[in-house]
Amino acid sequence: MLRLDRLAGELGVSLDALIPFGRDAVKLAAAPGTPRGRCILVSSITPTAGGEGKTTLAIGLADALRATGERAVVALRQPSLGPFFGIKGGGAGAGRAALTAAERVDVHFTGDLYAIAAAHNLLAAMIDNHLHHATELAIDPRSITWPRAIDMNDRALRRIVVGLGDVVRETGFVATAASEVMAVLALARDREDVEARLARIVVGARRDGSPVTARDIGAVGAMMVLLADAMLPNLTTTLEGTPAFVHAGPFADIAHGSSSAIATQSALSLADWVVTEAGFGFDLGGEKFFDIVCRSAAFDAAVVVLVCTVRSLIEHGDGAIDRGVPNLAAHVAAARCFGKPVVIAVNRHADDRSEDLRAIERFGVQLDVPVVESDAFARGAAGSLALARTVIDQVREPAPLRFLYQLTDSPRHKLLAIATRMYGARDVSWTVEASRQLDAAVALGADGWPVCVAKTPRSLSDDPHRRGRPADHVLGIREVRAAAGAGYWLAIAGHTELLPGLPRHPRAEAM
Amino acid sequence: MLRLDRLAGELGVSLDALIPFGRDAVKLAAAPGTPRGRCILVSSITPTAGGEGKTTLAIGLADALRATGERAVVALRQPSLGPFFGIKGGGAGAGRAALTAAERVDVHFTGDLYAIAAAHNLLAAMIDNHLHHATELAIDPRSITWPRAIDMNDRALRRIVVGLGDVVRETGFVATAASEVMAVLALARDREDVEARLARIVVGARRDGSPVTARDIGAVGAMMVLLADAMLPNLTTTLEGTPAFVHAGPFADIAHGSSSAIATQSALSLADWVVTEAGFGFDLGGEKFFDIVCRSAAFDAAVVVLVCTVRSLIEHGDGAIDRGVPNLAAHVAAARCFGKPVVIAVNRHADDRSEDLRAIERFGVQLDVPVVESDAFARGAAGSLALARTVIDQVREPAPLRFLYQLTDSPRHKLLAIATRMYGARDVSWTVEASRQLDAAVALGADGWPVCVAKTPRSLSDDPHRRGRPADHVLGIREVRAAAGAGYWLAIAGHTELLPGLPRHPRAEAM
Amino acid sequence: MLRLDRLAGELGVSLDALIPFGRDAVKLAAAPGTPRGRCILVSSITPTAGGEGKTTLAIGLADALRATGERAVVALRQPSLGPFFGIKGGGAGAGRAALTAAERVDVHFTGDLYAIAAAHNLLAAMIDNHLHHATELAIDPRSITWPRAIDMNDRALRRIVVGLGDVVRETGFVATAASEVMAVLALARDREDVEARLARIVVGARRDGSPVTARDIGAVGAMMVLLADAMLPNLTTTLEGTPAFVHAGPFADIAHGSSSAIATQSALSLADWVVTEAGFGFDLGGEKFFDIVCRSAAFDAAVVVLVCTVRSLIEHGDGAIDRGVPNLAAHVAAARCFGKPVVIAVNRHADDRSEDLRAIERFGVQLDVPVVESDAFARGAAGSLALARTVIDQVREPAPLRFLYQLTDSPRHKLLAIATRMYGARDVSWTVEASRQLDAAVALGADGWPVCVAKTPRSLSDDPHRRGRPADHVLGIREVRAAAGAGYWLAIAGHTELLPGLPRHPRAEAM
Amino acid sequence: MLRLDRLAGELGVSLDALIPFGRDAVKLAAAPGTPRGRCILVSSITPTAGGEGKTTLAIGLADALRATGERAVVALRQPSLGPFFGIKGGGAGAGRAALTAAERVDVHFTGDLYAIAAAHNLLAAMIDNHLHHATELAIDPRSITWPRAIDMNDRALRRIVVGLGDVVRETGFVATAASEVMAVLALARDREDVEARLARIVVGARRDGSPVTARDIGAVGAMMVLLADAMLPNLTTTLEGTPAFVHAGPFADIAHGSSSAIATQSALSLADWVVTEAGFGFDLGGEKFFDIVCRSAAFDAAVVVLVCTVRSLIEHGDGAIDRGVPNLAAHVAAARCFGKPVVIAVNRHADDRSEDLRAIERFGVQLDVPVVESDAFARGAAGSLALARTVIDQVREPAPLRFLYQLTDSPRHKLLAIATRMYGARDVSWTVEASRQLDAAVALGADGWPVCVAKTPRSLSDDPHRRGRPADHVLGIREVRAAAGAGYWLAIAGHTELLPGLPRHPRAEAM
Repeated sequence: MLRLDRLAGELGVSLDALIPFGRDAVKLAAAPGTPRGRCILVSSITPTAGGEGKTTLAIGLADALRATGERAVVALRQPSLGPFFGIKGGGAGAGRAALTAAERVDVHFTGDLYAIAAAHNLLAAMIDNHLHHATELAIDPRSITWPRAIDMNDRALRRIVVGLGDVVRETGFVATAASEVMAVLALARDREDVEARLARIVVGARRDGSPVTARDIGAVGAMMVLLADAMLPNLTTTLEGTPAFVHAGPFADIAHGSSSAIATQSALSLADWVVTEAGFGFDLGGEKFFDIVCRSAAFDAAVVVLVCTVRSLIEHGDGAIDRGVPNLAAHVAAARCFGKPVVIAVNRHADDRSEDLRAIERFGVQLDVPVVESDAFARGAAGSLALARTVIDQVREPAPLRFLYQLTDSPRHKLLAIATRMYGARDVSWTVEASRQLDAAVALGADGWPVCVAKTPRSLSDDPHRRGRPADHVLGIREVRAAAGAGYWLAIAGHTELLPGLPRHPRAEAM
Repeated sequence: MLRLDRLAGELGVSLDALIPFGRDAVKLAAAPGTPRGRCILVSSITPTAGGEGKTTLAIGLADALRATGERAVVALRQPSLGPFFGIKGGGAGAGRAALTAAERVDVHFTGDLYAIAAAHNLLAAMIDNHLHHATELAIDPRSITWPRAIDMNDRALRRIVVGLGDVVRETGFVATAASEVMAVLALARDREDVEARLARIVVGARRDGSPVTARDIGAVGAMMVLLADAMLPNLTTTLEGTPAFVHAGPFADIAHGSSSAIATQSALSLADWVVTEAGFGFDLGGEKFFDIVCRSAAFDAAVVVLVCTVRSLIEHGDGAIDRGVPNLAAHVAAARCFGKPVVIAVNRHADDRSEDLRAIERFGVQLDVPVVESDAFARGAAGSLALARTVIDQVREPAPLRFLYQLTDSPRHKLLAIATRMYGARDVSWTVEASRQLDAAVALGADGWPVCVAKTPRSLSDDPHRRGRPADHVLGIREVRAAAGAGYWLAIAGHTELLPGLPRHPRAEAM
Repeated sequence: MLRLDRLAGELGVSLDALIPFGRDAVKLAAAPGTPRGRCILVSSITPTAGGEGKTTLAIGLADALRATGERAVVALRQPSLGPFFGIKGGGAGAGRAALTAAERVDVHFTGDLYAIAAAHNLLAAMIDNHLHHATELAIDPRSITWPRAIDMNDRALRRIVVGLGDVVRETGFVATAASEVMAVLALARDREDVEARLARIVVGARRDGSPVTARDIGAVGAMMVLLADAMLPNLTTTLEGTPAFVHAGPFADIAHGSSSAIATQSALSLADWVVTEAGFGFDLGGEKFFDIVCRSAAFDAAVVVLVCTVRSLIEHGDGAIDRGVPNLAAHVAAARCFGKPVVIAVNRHADDRSEDLRAIERFGVQLDVPVVESDAFARGAAGSLALARTVIDQVREPAPLRFLYQLTDSPRHKLLAIATRMYGARDVSWTVEASRQLDAAVALGADGWPVCVAKTPRSLSDDPHRRGRPADHVLGIREVRAAAGAGYWLAIAGHTELLPGLPRHPRAEAM
Repeated sequence: MLRLDRLAGELGVSLDALIPFGRDAVKLAAAPGTPRGRCILVSSITPTAGGEGKTTLAIGLADALRATGERAVVALRQPSLGPFFGIKGGGAGAGRAALTAAERVDVHFTGDLYAIAAAHNLLAAMIDNHLHHATELAIDPRSITWPRAIDMNDRALRRIVVGLGDVVRETGFVATAASEVMAVLALARDREDVEARLARIVVGARRDGSPVTARDIGAVGAMMVLLADAMLPNLTTTLEGTPAFVHAGPFADIAHGSSSAIATQSALSLADWVVTEAGFGFDLGGEKFFDIVCRSAAFDAAVVVLVCTVRSLIEHGDGAIDRGVPNLAAHVAAARCFGKPVVIAVNRHADDRSEDLRAIERFGVQLDVPVVESDAFARGAAGSLALARTVIDQVREPAPLRFLYQLTDSPRHKLLAIATRMYGARDVSWTVEASRQLDAAVALGADGWPVCVAKTPRSLSDDPHRRGRPADHVLGIREVRAAAGAGYWLAIAGHTELLPGLPRHPRAEAM
């Protein structure tokens, strides 16, 4: 069980600021202070089926930093139920580099995801209630773009018809992790910013074509009531006692993929080092961390740690690690676009062969990037000391952040920059539908927003079957959604679904 | 903020058994002991728009009992978000007879309703996943009776088509308060019973017609993971410090309407008096408390307190209280069917006229039922002392419970008994559909189960517009659902919907 | 092949008035004259699976009348494709009492049913087009009651959701035989009446609640273009050369069940005797012929011939003909309500046992109704001479028509009269939905219209499994539709569907 | 009224072979003989809103040939109701170059389109009936690709959900003109070929993935019953008395766009010259006439007449005819791909300016194509004599047909050939969906079939807004359907819908 007094002492906050939720978690009831620490961004190569172990490595790195006497914390995303019952399982680290009471973190935790879904769905219910009562808002049912949200991998809810017997219309559910409310909560600077962003959310249009916002619906106050606690960062610890922020959980393949700006800022105000992670490969989570999160937040990252495993690089190379390293090279090149130093962290597994490890090292020399092995899974902090030292070493000089594109660039230009420089695509193609939706988004102001790409995490391209570093591919955009509250437009590529499904044998069956 | 040490002392449990969830609530991590106290059931006449104040009166009565030196607690249902944002508002008492931190009780509380909905919807997602993967279970999509659940008054989700682009079928959402998982949790004796009941839930049929259970789906283990905490009773206190169990929240109009058997039994093992309430009028919540809950639980109620207000009786009488009291008489007669002493509690409002109060008293004399005024709203415990004394007075001699029907009676006979003796109907009519569904339910064993009626709470009849004590009415059954896990069959009357909608101007708009 | 010159001669019309459609059918391009002949209505007992042979008997009777030197014709309904491919097969008579080129009559014929469906569906398409273009008509999509129509037993089209990707709403198809356009065509007196009735059709309501008519939609002119030929009666002959009108085909279980008023009136102006039939049992087709058709047409029937078979009466009696004849008695009593003489015609089959035939005769004596055997199937005109003589004998004195109810009676009273006096029910029950729909129909003027009941043809009751003369039954009304163009309101009982389905092995499989 | 004896004489058939359907049309009940005449294919440039007048010009040309003493007939497609009530209006010629009784041709005619829709929909009903009865065919509802068909521009039926309350699935209606049954009827050589093709139609798949055909469904015999008459070519005459075949009506933008092979072959066996037309621009109808129709039929065309109007060329040039003629050039080049001589026919309008006519002539000189004016609308045969002479002049030497692609080419190669050589596209793009559907079609044998493109007729590209001769465009394929009965695969480009919708003010409103 979590010792509140120790945690308060470690962070230097008063015991009163910690509100317990169950035996293993607390909420921090204090507004974030001014950042003073440095942020380490952990991302990875294109992950293969088993994952690269970013979370484990981030926890191990924070533990190692703390073990060397630094004031370090880790700031993670909250895992979702959907993947937990599907394929992925837990998201709270592994082995000796894990969070206390990992199961609670995976299931319910402090209830934030429920509160987010409730706020999301209250807005949806109020929209349909306007239709039912045929209010003076005069909403055109066809225009409604606000889906419902659920934290469940429930394929059948992706495309549904609602309101049989009343006002019938076609809509769908998205994962709570892809909800715009989640994005708002994760991107907002403070409570006022949450409220202002919620109010700006565009849910559809009137019959005269003018946009309808959450404020017009009259839902903002009630959504704020539902989100009151969810805005407060959650805290727990690692098994080694390092404070761990776990707050907000947008997926990086269908949303922006970072833990909350509030939590990271709080962490940076309370510690010297904050290890955070960006979902999936750097092409997805890393790019969005810099171009979306850092653009509005009061911080950026001082260094990028790219995690890889021998197993994955071999898989990317179809059996030969030398043919797999180009995927790593692509992510190193992508990370360098932002002007930050890069460290390659090899997440060790017991059966890694030394010739493969040597191959990665040679590759690091070639790219002029330090390569460090980490064995946090088996050895905790002790397994990541070398990595901690290398990271500290890399950030001695400040490296100013360079964005991949400017907000004044045209929307298509922004996306082209990401497609070519992050994914290695030669072009972007648009369906007629997506093109029209982009025009509608621009009418809402999207030309001034960053773009958030929804793309398979399994490939640099939009085709999950193309491993390694695919050449000669075109990013196909199927759909565009405007997220005026989040402040970005979503470009959905290929077959990406905003609500995952379950596999033939979901993990839930084995529980 | 809740003082855990005081609460532990008051209940005589160790501090370790209390797990805090936020500042105002704890979960009791101890299995229920053997009941030793006596249970007081608070129900009411047919409530009018403002409600009769059952919860307020139950809290006041418990406070008053404790004020007179008795070891008393109150055991309440957890309010739902749906009505909170719709018409009803909070469900945590009012005035000086309320729970601490009422808002938290109304919104999220300890997250049990979310856990219940998640368990419910995981089962739903796994069912549709079987269809998607065309597994060897060979489920007939038409046969599926398992809906989805949400705690939101979202009319548009009542009847939906899911799975567009994949396996398409018609289904719907019910309120979490009407979920069979909620019923299971509220009726089960312990963790093993929850698991056994979940396993028995019938969700549909194979193509060969044989039933498919939650166990067949493979969902029970995962549902138990989701429900692990939700099974533990929640505790908070009244404003006057009386311990208050708040656990499970089935609605009495669309489900069985009592707080959890586990919580009531825990309360009865820790206190001498447990004041509990049965939703809406006695015809709904009271009947179900005795015929459904007490039939399987280790306790029954020693006395029934029927709450009424002057305002409502006048409304039932269309302006004349003498024409409204027959509604009260109907509930008194209904309550007496179960062999228990009855007390009429008049929930005082500041502007009640004395001649109206006298009219109720005269009526009590006529019926030979004590009539006591309560002013808990304005005066807390002090306002209910007379009621407390009267109640104690009524239970000096044990009154054995008589059920309204025997489980061996035929299903139609059971329902007819309720319709005639509780609702005053002269007959029951069945749509062809409902008749067929009852046959299907019987094939699953429903002839041995009690029946749970879904009916408007606004009238003794199935027509919400008929106030007072309607004569010459027929209970029209539109639909029957089998709840093999809950262990009852649901008979849905008239226009009752299992998912409420929002009014033209929901309360959410004013937040 | 049909000889046009002979047919023209037989009818006394000019050859120019006959427009050929294929080798076996012509349309009569002449307005109906004043009726001068007498009309014989052929109806039946409650038919069992094989049918009673009304059409065969009507043809045989007309042939026999003509064989005796009378100027006689037969006027029949046009068969539908749906039942032809389903269970029923052809509807053009059988054996020696059949129409020439029966197959053409069964399939396409002169295309009238297609024209009716096209007119029906053009109106539907124009309604949805108003929604799509959000025109100033401001139609509320929920209010639309106008279905689509198809002459196909296609169960899957009964309840559908249309407009996915655009204005989505729930609707359904009805059989062309149940289309209000069919009813209009069959009931109208002339072209002007068709146009006026089409214009009055109510298809839904504006957002302000006011009704929207086909005229408001702007569809009437185009519907008239589509119906121009369909209004003209079709003519062919029987195998024995008797002229046969075959025009319009409303089903008697889901519509009013008689051939067109225009055709019957034309026939009555050209011949001395017109044999016509009323679909299914007299309770359905017979009642509607008198109460709906004759109320507005310029004619009524002089005598009712009730067809029965030995086989069916035995089936109604569960093996004993004595227990089956009460069904016949019920129809005799029903027919007598209208003040007309009744003849029982036993449609002979080769294997009828003489004791059974004697039983029917005894029964006729008991009821004071002549019983005559007919063997038109095997012997054509010759097999029906006795019947022809009996029929002529019965109509020597005019018998004024008595309606079952007055148009000024209340809607519920009208239906009760039919339920009790035609079906032998003791009461009528209404679902809440149907009650509400009746109120809406009354707001459109339905209190001044006759009622058209949709009920199973397999039983006097609304339960197809109750044979014979069911006692103690209640007619359950599930749905009400207003047909302002047809000029009646439709009361749909029990499980009756307005679009039939196919059996496990449709006849189409064997073609 | 049509004089049957004259028509029979003109064609040299016996009077018995002509079956009258109404006053203006007959069916030819004789199998097609061996072709002996020459076929003239009339197609056009990319038509603008008013159309180029292909039908008028084809009628005028046939009238002119006959006026010069040649045995000439015209063979046209049957117009559809949908466009008739929508924007297009009638399709039976105009002015003095029109069919007798044009209105009857436009509305119902001999009922063939109804018969085709009925056969199509019977198959659909039988498929869903297999699902309802869960037959041993074990059809996977998701796999069904067979839509329903209707001859009505009813946008709301494009995407629908059927079977609510039973087996629910998503499907849609296509225009009868896009029905595969229409394609079968239009492409088949004779009755046996129709039956064989119907039997091959693939409607979906079993749960084991194997294809289900119309034969498996058991529908072929019944479909043949419905199509018995529809297979016989219809005949009427032009206003000047030229025999006119009018048979089958596939649209050229969503189907293959030619009148029936049976009718054309019959015509070629009875006359020396048969003028036929290919829908919309040559890029659509012309290409398909050669690559699809002629590949299987016993004939090809001797010459291509490309119709244009001054008005359209100006519109293509945004006001300047010189910028519009490149569209004409594209079609000339496309037509020449097939090895046939080309004639440009300018369909004169009263207000054409002579400088514009001169511009077209200069352009003809430049392209080495004869340019002839035709004034059939105003002057009938007399207005097309020059054109008739020029056409005769062009076909003195036989020009062997060259196909655009070989059946052994890969499917993608075939489509690329069309896209680049007919439409001037630089490439073809495929959605992931379309690509997958093509793979499924290939599994059914599509690699050996020709491709039929569904594309907007308003542009050479897939974007209806790009007029003239668009440069640098990519043909985007959204969907692929296999038509195993028709014997082609359908590639649907851009936004093309297989069921048209009505405009804001459909022509039906003005009738």
